[in-house]
Parts: sequence; C-alpha cells; structure tokens
Amino acid sequence: MYSYQRLQSFAHNVFLKIGCPAGEASQASEALLSADLRGVDSHGVARLSGYVRLWEAGRVNASPEIKIVHETPSTAVVDGDRGLGLVVAPRAMEIAIKKAESAGTGWVAVRNTNHFGIAGYHASMALSHDMIGLVMTNASPLVAPTFSKERLLGTNPIAVAIPAKNQPPFIADFSTTTAANGKLEILQRKDEIAPLGWIQDEEGCPTENPYALENGGALLPLGSDREHGSHKGYCLGAIVDIFSAIFSGANYGPWVPPFVSFLPLSDDRVGEGIGHFIGAIRIDAFRPAEEFKTHMDNWISRFRNAETIPGKDRVLIPGDPEREFEIERLENGIPLNEKVISDLEKLSNKMGIEF
Amino acid sequence: MYSYQRLQSFAHNVFLKIGCPAGEASQASEALLSADLRGVDSHGVARLSGYVRLWEAGRVNASPEIKIVHETPSTAVVDGDRGLGLVVAPRAMEIAIKKAESAGTGWVAVRNTNHFGIAGYHASMALSHDMIGLVMTNASPLVAPTFSKERLLGTNPIAVAIPAKNQPPFIADFSTTTAANGKLEILQRKDEIAPLGWIQDEEGCPTENPYALENGGALLPLGSDREHGSHKGYCLGAIVDIFSAIFSGANYGPWVPPFVSFLPLSDDRVGEGIGHFIGAIRIDAFRPAEEFKTHMDNWISRFRNAETIPGKDRVLIPGDPEREFEIERLENGIPLNEKVISDLEKLSNKMGIEF
Repeated sequence: MYSYQRLQSFAHNVFLKIGCPAGEASQASEALLSADLRGVDSHGVARLSGYVRLWEAGRVNASPEIKIVHETPSTAVVDGDRGLGLVVAPRAMEIAIKKAESAGTGWVAVRNTNHFGIAGYHASMALSHDMIGLVMTNASPLVAPTFSKERLLGTNPIAVAIPAKNQPPFIADFSTTTAANGKLEILQRKDEIAPLGWIQDEEGCPTENPYALENGGALLPLGSDREHGSHKGYCLGAIVDIFSAIFSGANYGPWVPPFVSFLPLSDDRVGEGIGHFIGAIRIDAFRPAEEFKTHMDNWISRFRNAETIPGKDRVLIPGDPEREFEIERLENGIPLNEKVISDLEKLSNKMGIEF
Repeated sequence: MYSYQRLQSFAHNVFLKIGCPAGEASQASEALLSADLRGVDSHGVARLSGYVRLWEAGRVNASPEIKIVHETPSTAVVDGDRGLGLVVAPRAMEIAIKKAESAGTGWVAVRNTNHFGIAGYHASMALSHDMIGLVMTNASPLVAPTFSKERLLGTNPIAVAIPAKNQPPFIADFSTTTAANGKLEILQRKDEIAPLGWIQDEEGCPTENPYALENGGALLPLGSDREHGSHKGYCLGAIVDIFSAIFSGANYGPWVPPFVSFLPLSDDRVGEGIGHFIGAIRIDAFRPAEEFKTHMDNWISRFRNAETIPGKDRVLIPGDPEREFEIERLENGIPLNEKVISDLEKLSNKMGIEF
C-alpha cells in the first residue's frame, strides 16, 4: 500500500523534473492521482513513465503556452501547444466555466493536446460552480467500428458530472467500448480468458484471447455485436471523435497519434495532437440551482432504493464505486501491482527522484 | 405499399381534425412520416391512433401556446403547453438555432410536452444552417438500470446530426437500450425468440421471451449486462433523463407518464409532461464550416472504406441505412403491416377521414 501523499509527491517531482512550472506540476499530479484514488488503476501512476517517454520523444511540451485561438460567447477553440492533457484539460474547463457564467453554457474544443488521465476528474471541476461538467476526448485507435476489421477509433470516453443537494454528485465516466484496455491487462495478469464480446482477433472474428489486441485485433464498441447494439457504441465513439477533433483541428480516427512513444507518428497527419471537447452548463441558466438539486436528490434516492435483481443488493448511482474507492484509499493507501512498482522504481533511478 | 403522399395527407387531415392549426398539422405529419420514410416503422403512422387517443384523454393539447419561460444567451426553457412533441420539438429546435446564431450554441430544455416521433428528424433541422443538431427525450419507463428489477428509465434516445460537404450528413439516432420496443414487436409478429441480453423477466432474470416486457419484465440498457457494460447504457439513459426533465421541470424516471392513454397518470407527479433536450451548435463558432465539412468528408470516406470482418461487405456511416430506406420508399412506397392498416382504417372510420 502506498499513501496518496507519497505517490502524488513523487509524480509532482517527476513533472517538475521534466520542466513543468510548479503550479502545473501540482495540477498534473493531482489529475493523474485522482485515477488511482478512484480505482481506475490503468489511468493513474501506472502511466507516469509513459508520459515521461512522450516528453523524451519530444511529443509533450512541459511548459506549453495554452491559447484561445477562436471564440464566440459560448464557445472557444484552444491550442494546447503539445502540453500534457493533465494540464491542458483543466485550463479548458476553466474557460468553459467562465463562458457558462456569462452565456449560460461554455463549450471548448481543444487541439494539439495529449492524454488527460480520467475524464471524470475534469468534468467534476464544474460541480462547485453549480454547473454540470461534460468532458470527452479521442484517443489512439484500438476500436473497430461495427463490421470493420480495422481499428479506427479510440476508447473515446465521456464523463458527465451533475451536482445534487444532500446526495453526492452523479458522476458518469465511461469509455464507449464494451470494456477498456485496462480490463484486458487485468485478465492477462490473472491468466484468464476474456468474455466474448470484448474483442475481435486480427481477422475480425470474436475471440476470448486477452492478448488479441496486441496481436492485431481490436476492442469492440459498447454493445459488442450488431445484434446487441454495437452500432450505437460505434455512434458514440464517432461522436466523441468528431466533437473532440474535427471541431478543434486535432487528429481523428485512425490518424490519432499513439499514446506509446515507441510507435512512430504517422506521416499523413490530419490535425495537431489529440483532441478534447469540454463543456460547462450553468444550472440556473435553466432553473434555480436549489430546485434542480432537490430533484436530483429525489432522482438519486429513487434509483438507489430500487428493488434489485436476484444476487445483487443495490442499484448503484454513477460515481458511487469511485467515491467508495476514494474514501477507502485515502484512508488505507493505494495498492500497486508489481509491474507498476518496478516501473516507478526504474523511473525513480533514471530521474534521480526518491520514490 | 402506400405512397408517402397518401399517408402524410391522411395524418395531416387527422391532425387538422383534432384541432391542430394548419401549419402545425403539416409539421406534425411531416415529422411523424419521416419515421416511416427512414424505416423506423414503430415510430411513424403506426403511432397515429395512439396520439389521437392521448388527445381524447385530454393529455394532448392540439393548439398549444408554446412559450419560453426562462432564457440566457445560449439557453432556454420551453413550456410545451401539452402540445404534440411532433410540433413542440421543431419549435424548440428553431429556438436553439436562433440562440446558436448569436451565442455560438443554443440549448433548449422542454417540459410539458409529449412524444416527438424520431429524434433524428428534429436533429437534422440544424444541418441546413451549417450547424450540428443534438436531440434527446425521455420516455415512459420500460428499462431497468443495471442490477434493478424495476423499470425506471425510458428507451431515452439520442440523435446527433453533423453536416458534411460532398458526403451525405452523419446522422446518429439511437435508443440507449440494447434493443428498443419496436424490435420486440417484430419478433412477436414472426413468432421468434429474443436474443439473450435484450430483456429481463419480471423477476429480473435474463429471458428470451419476446412477451416478457408485457409480463412485467424490462428492456435492458445498451451493453445488456454488467460484464458487457450495461452500466454505461444505464449512465446514458440517466443523462438523457436528467437533461430532458430535471433541467426543464418535466417528469423523470419512473414518474414519466406512459405513452398509452389507457394507463392512468400517476398521482405523485414530479413535473409536467415528458421532457426533451435540444441543442444546436454553429460549426463556425469553432472553425470555418467549409474546413470542418471537408474533414467530415475525409472521416466518412475513411470509415466507409474500411476493411470489413468476414461476411460483411461494408462499414456503414450513421444515417446510411435510413437514407437508403428514404430513397427507396419515396420511389416505391411504404409497406405497412396488417395490424397497422386495420388500425388506420378504424381511425379513418371514427374520424370520417378518407384513408
């Protein structure tokens, strides 16, 4: 078990070392660690060395000049100057919140940015302003649209954070695939097969092999197959791709640059970096916030107290599992698997930063 | 086969007869028939007598005074005055488009409205303005959230229409369930069983019985079960419910009034009517429309020309199947099943309108 403070301080020092200004190193480490706290182990410190390798490859700018390049009362396009998404996305959300204060809603499309950790962290920034936060990003192509053998979309997550009154907020944060990459890694570590409907092999056929993705296969859109609605998951992933990248001028579809630095960037880019789409909706642009939040409490209690199917003891509200992880891990620490520990130790040696 | 003109004219006369002003009768019949044209047979003239019964039950106001009750530069709340959703939703989209012209985006939450046919019709209104249209609505509770035995959500569809340049537009229009109600009716007519993952029975157990919904069972969120991501479909349905109804002051969750008029309205309503959420995004609020649409063409060609999995000859772009139906049915007519024909004949007799 590793304490939150210890891991955040390590990440903070690593970001300082690669040249992030102090405030941004702090922002980046907080955003990164929020994944570990919330139980999304694939998106937290496990990725720290990956971010450093992107910086070494010249793909991440540690002190970016993040700029608004176009705007209207409710929209803006932001150029992230190759910054860490962990820093660029919160900046974009601040702009969206500011727009929402005056125009009712704010919508910011971001180009020339990098992976931003978990979408839910950024969406949740809107909550304390009595706003709804909405965040999406495109990502490296690992997903085959319905009927496609080729990988053309990323796991393209969507997060929506909605405040309530006495209930904790509703925070949905999900990839638009049946299962995201991190779940395959867990199966590989446990030497287990994958449920049918998660992946297809390099020929485009259903498979239970959790290594199929490494062997040229693809993740499947939410819905798994046509009969179970995979065309809807494909629609969602496509909408995230278009909103994140075609609004902003980032790369889209199969042109999105890979997260891993050892894969070369494609020669025929269609934009700059990856793209995010970030929105803030001021609640009282529709209805007094107190009234809205009272109804949210009612919604949440009704759903949480629903009768359950056999073998299950409660219906969850989006955000419940992550919040429970956060409480538990702030108290008892964050478990890391051996591969991640050895990776962090190597990083510690390389950078001369105590782990 | 029935010609589009014949069916639209019949629907138009029926709407006139119940008291719709001429312009609104024309709008309602066009919106309704767009479903038949696009192959969404469950949402077109098959529902005409249902709308009339709602009017007979006093739940539909044929000449509503549709009003903006609150607004900011980029948002509005609209009271539909119990109008047909087929009329209220296009009005709300017009308001959203107007807001988007000045503020960059426009977002309209609608309460006190009724079912609006297919979401894609309303979303597509934005296209000719070089805008993206986004439309969602909540609906009668038929769907059980993950782990719930109770039906708490509607099939809550989302539609997003995005213009391209030389390619036809991208139009996604999908329920947030594995399969919508209309598909069960098709199975019942063919005397076939339902794929596992579409429905659960009244105990909350998986079932292949296509009549399970009538017997107290429930439709399942997109993803089918927890292992295949049904919690993500549940999140989507919940977001549609909250955006459509809690922003606007409509009924939400299990309180949404049933579409069928023979079921009584609940006594403990939490709002007025059902709710829609309707948005328009001006493309050049982000980027010159020509540039955006050129990239959309590139996106669409790349996906349409992707290599396919065995047994499939092409990857579809959202909107392709509906557009092909529309071309074919405008030319050759619209097929109706016997039950629908007999229903329309009864309606014809009752209202004294030639069918």
